[in-house]
Formats: sequence, C-alpha cells, structure tokens
Amino acid sequence: MRTLQVALAERSYPIHIGEGLLDTFPLAEQIRGNQVMIITNETIAPLYLDKLAKQFADVQCDTLILPDGEKFKTLDTLETIFDALMSKRHSRTTTLIALGGGVVGDMVGFAAACYQRGVDFIQVPTTLLAQVDSSVGGKTAVNHPRGKNMIGAFYQPRLVLIDTLVLETLPARELAAGYAEVVKYGLIRDLPFYRWLETNNEKLLSRESDAIAEAIYRSCENKAQVVADDETEQGNRALLNLGHTFGHAIETATGYTSMLHGEAVAVGMIMAVRMSSELGWVEAGLEADLTALLATWELPVVVPAGMTPEQFLDLMAMDKKVHNGQLRLVLLKALGEAVVTADYDKAALESTLEAFCGV
Amino acid sequence: MRTLQVALAERSYPIHIGEGLLDTFPLAEQIRGNQVMIITNETIAPLYLDKLAKQFADVQCDTLILPDGEKFKTLDTLETIFDALMSKRHSRTTTLIALGGGVVGDMVGFAAACYQRGVDFIQVPTTLLAQVDSSVGGKTAVNHPRGKNMIGAFYQPRLVLIDTLVLETLPARELAAGYAEVVKYGLIRDLPFYRWLETNNEKLLSRESDAIAEAIYRSCENKAQVVADDETEQGNRALLNLGHTFGHAIETATGYTSMLHGEAVAVGMIMAVRMSSELGWVEAGLEADLTALLATWELPVVVPAGMTPEQFLDLMAMDKKVHNGQLRLVLLKALGEAVVTADYDKAALESTLEAFCGV
Repeated sequence: MRTLQVALAERSYPIHIGEGLLDTFPLAEQIRGNQVMIITNETIAPLYLDKLAKQFADVQCDTLILPDGEKFKTLDTLETIFDALMSKRHSRTTTLIALGGGVVGDMVGFAAACYQRGVDFIQVPTTLLAQVDSSVGGKTAVNHPRGKNMIGAFYQPRLVLIDTLVLETLPARELAAGYAEVVKYGLIRDLPFYRWLETNNEKLLSRESDAIAEAIYRSCENKAQVVADDETEQGNRALLNLGHTFGHAIETATGYTSMLHGEAVAVGMIMAVRMSSELGWVEAGLEADLTALLATWELPVVVPAGMTPEQFLDLMAMDKKVHNGQLRLVLLKALGEAVVTADYDKAALESTLEAFCGV
Repeated sequence: MRTLQVALAERSYPIHIGEGLLDTFPLAEQIRGNQVMIITNETIAPLYLDKLAKQFADVQCDTLILPDGEKFKTLDTLETIFDALMSKRHSRTTTLIALGGGVVGDMVGFAAACYQRGVDFIQVPTTLLAQVDSSVGGKTAVNHPRGKNMIGAFYQPRLVLIDTLVLETLPARELAAGYAEVVKYGLIRDLPFYRWLETNNEKLLSRESDAIAEAIYRSCENKAQVVADDETEQGNRALLNLGHTFGHAIETATGYTSMLHGEAVAVGMIMAVRMSSELGWVEAGLEADLTALLATWELPVVVPAGMTPEQFLDLMAMDKKVHNGQLRLVLLKALGEAVVTADYDKAALESTLEAFCGV
C-alpha cells in the first residue's frame, strides 16, 4: 500500500492506493460516529457492496443503491439520498461512503457537504477516472439541465481508498475514459510523466498491475499538489480543466448520454492542443501524437456529428471559468505546461471549432 | 449608521445598521463582478425591490420573486433559483442579494453556497428576526419534509445591510417573533441586556426607533461574538439554539404553517427554562417572569393542542444536536448563562413535556 497526503491544513486527508485494500484496509477504524451509509449504484452493488458493508458489522450500516449513469447526477437523486438519511435517522456524526465512479462520488460528496450542513465522507472510487481525478480534491456537484457540475461545493473527504483490483471488473471503455485524465496530468504539468506514459503504453493497455498502480499514484500526486496549492480554484487549479470546457460543451450537447466524461475530455484535450498550436504555443505535431496515443485506447478523437461552432460557443459561455463575460480557456504554453487565460486570439478558437465541426 | 464586524479571518464581514440604509448605503460599490440577482418574495417585492434594484443600474441586475412562507423553503424552490441563475447566465463572479426575512436569507445563502460551488452574497434582512438572527452567522439551509434546516451549508455573506426603517411595514406578529430571539441573547449570555429589555419593554412595544436600533445592535453583537468563536457549531454556537429543539419539534409537528419560527422558539424557550428550573439550575420564578414578558408581545406561551410528549421525543431525536444517539439540549445554568448538555435527568425532560402537553 502506498499513501499520499493531500495537504489542506485541518482538512488534510490521506489517499491509500493498493491491491486488495477493500479486503485488507481497516476502514471501520476511520469512522468517528456509530452510523455509516454506503451509497453506490446498481452496477457496482453486486460486485463490491457486501464486501465493504461487512467491515461495518459493529455500527449502524445502511446502504443505498442508486441508478447508474451521469443522467442521474441531479438534484432529484440528491433528494433521494437525503430522504434515505432522514428516514434512517442519520445524525451529524454519520459517515457517508461513496462506492462507485465519479458520478457516485460527486453526488455523495455533495450530499455529505449539505446534510445537516456537513458530515464526514469517504471515497472508495471504483473507476480509473474516479481514482485519478474526481475522488481527489473535494470538488462535489450535481448537474443542472443547462450545465454540468453547476450546483455543488468544495468539500473534502476524510479519506480516499483506492483498491486497484476493482479495475479488473471495469469495462475497457471506462478504463480508457479514465486514461484520458491520466494523460492530462502529463500534458499540463508533468513532462516526464507524459514521456513515461508514451513509453509504457503497451503495459498500460494490457492492464499490467504495476504500471496501472504507478499511473494512478503519479496522477493522484499531481492532482494533490495542484489542489493543495489552490483548493477552491482561485488560480492554478483550473489547469486541471484542460479539455474540459470543450468537453463539457460536448457532454451538454449530447445530453450526457452518448459519451463518457473522459471521452469528451479526450476530444476536448485534442481541441485545446490544436488551439494551442494555432496560437503557436506548441508544435503542430503534438496534436497528431496525442491523437494517435488516445486512439490506441479507442478513445474518440473527433467531435460528435452535427455540432456547430455556434453551439460550442453558446455552451462554453456557461462555463464556470467565464469571468465578467470573458471566456478563459486552459491551453498549453508548452508540452507539460498549461495556462488558464482569456488572453488569446479569438480567431484561433474559431478556426479550431470550425476544423473540428467540419465547417 | 453603526457597523459591527463579524470576525472570521478571511471570511470576516461587516453588519451595517441604520435608518434608511436602503436609500443611502452605496451597495453597488460592494459588488465584485458585473452581475447581481436580487431574490425576494411576493410580500417584500412591492415594498422594497425597486428601491434596491435602482442601485444596480450599471450592471446586469436580475430579480427573482419567490412565494412567501416557510413552506417554500425547499429544494424545489432552490431549483427555481438555480434555473433563474442559469437562464440569465450568471457566472461565478455574480452576487446574490437576499432581500427578505429568514426564509429568503437562508435559501439565497444556500443557493449562493452551491451555485457554481460558491458565489458572493449579501443579506438585506427585512424582518426583525432575520436582522437579529438568521442573516448573521452564515447558517444557510432549506427544510426537509422530516426536519427543519436539514440540508444546508455554513456560508458567510460578504455584507449584511440592516435598514431599521423596513420594520415600519412589518406586521406586529412578525415583530414579536423577532423579539423572541432578541430575548434569547439576554437569557443565554447577557444578563445586563436581559435587564435592559425588561426595563425598556414599553419603548420596544411602541417601536421607538432608538430602542429598536439598540436592541438590534446588541443582539447582532452577541451573535457575532458567538459565531466568531465557533463558526461551524462544534461547541458554544449551539447555545444560540436555546428553545430551538423544542421549537423545531413544534414547527415540524404543525407543518411549518400555524406558528412562525420565533413563536415556536418563544414556547421552546419557556420549556427550556422550565426544564432548567426542574433541574434546580434557575429559580422557579424565571419561567413566570419570562412567560409574562413574552405575553406582552402576544407571543404564544403554550404548546399547540394535541401534541404529546411522545411526539416531542420522536421529533427531537432528529435534531442536529443528537450525537451518537444522545439528545443534547440547551439549558440555563443561570439567568444569562446557557449550556449545551446531554447530562441532565431525563425525568426533568419528561415532566416538562408532560406539563406543557397537559398530560
């Protein structure tokens, strides 16, 4: 087991990473009160819920199984969580445990932030995406029909438990979606890691355990450093959103159904790299290299048919990085060095959108 | 104008109190971005909305008018606020302004805490209750059908603007409900203020402007001190809930309709004082004195007909002050000195409930 610490003063917490931790890590010792509610979804429940619940034989342990999918990441589902907590009389000393991917983690984290104005929660991410991204850093939210993650809170877990064994049951498509975020850390701030990923791509594709664990560890390390420097996204934390502004527009346009989040981010990152190269900030070859790397994972590398530049601009105008009417984008100043800026030639944005929309 | 500072490190903020501040205070200078949304209710809107909106002629100023009443303090109404913000494309630099009583303030504060994970908000309380209590201290929430204020956040405003003139349009019943919370500060931590309130009761009843302003100032001062010491209610902040555990049970039992919050608190405070005297902590005469004082304001001093001790115990078990199954109550160790404790003779609780339920 390897342990990383996310350094956030009195809200600091550990990320434990290892094979088989669902069986071996003494999670019950981490609970402060005498109640827990494990919240998961109908895909994960049959695989891991019993195993996790078994740890809490000595306290009140309730479980809640939600429908699976981003389209259920809504205020309505949040209300379902509150109803369950209230009907089982969970008090302010309860602990919510999110067992699942990013959707479960984001919702349970937000529920924990709001229930009785804040209760403890623990993340047990079961997808690569959640392990390397959403379960680390305290961003919690639900979607609004007009925009993703528009309603939420910054709220840190008390602990993140990453069992790499759970990836064995993860569909290849989901693994690839998580891989997109792994690559992101290399692109935005860690050139050595990007090169390592290129070199070890075959091992990762064949799910070699050591390589996967290393990729998770280095991803979490990068994320933890960014978050520790800027918990509430006043500055550099926004760098983690490389590809996300484009990606969110795609997700919103397609109703959060046809593409996984990581898939939309994969396309979005290629768009951001293209725009960076149109601005002359990175070499033109990077777009092709990145596209080829992502394609080995069978990630989408093109915009869904029918989307227009106007639609992108309209949806991107709702992005949380809009400040006083200015759309700020995460772009690359160089490979391994991202910036958040509204100071770019609008023509580069337009020609990027036109190129990807086939206009 | 008098100004109090709520000392909360980087979340510190001022409370400005004075006659006519809605006209004279330069509120527009306090806005960081170029968007505001003033959220109020259908009772307050015709009285003060235009006056306030006029201040924001130079920025995007949207308004939202909600139905009036505690029964609308729900997740559904919260969604209405999010819908309005999204449809008017409010960004992360927007400012929400709560113009209204505690219901509006609590909901708008919670909306501000959640919208895009947190935007600025300003409280302009228009009831005495909101001026002396809910607008100060950052407790925001909506109700759950099974319990009051169960879903919320600790989220501080950037500024509170108290115009004492707005009380001129406040119905006597609402003024009295606010007065109950004013008395509370005397009971829990400020004996000189309690004596001042007894001495100046006639002036306050006849709404003498100077007396009312002094009562607001001293109430806010007490609240600000308590909140500064314990922002997230880990300890002494719970003292502010004198009478609230009993009161919330009454409000829940009556569906938040027949009694105003301050009215339920008035009854609850008398119950807490009675229980404190049954425990031998305060003189038996205090219950009668307090009952008489509250009665001059025509506040209710008895429990609604039909409520039973069992119903109280059942509803009180859902209180946020329940820790690991123990019901903690705010009680008086002496007049002007409250404690939060689970260390009391249960018989005193039962006999208090029986006495008030007429069993």
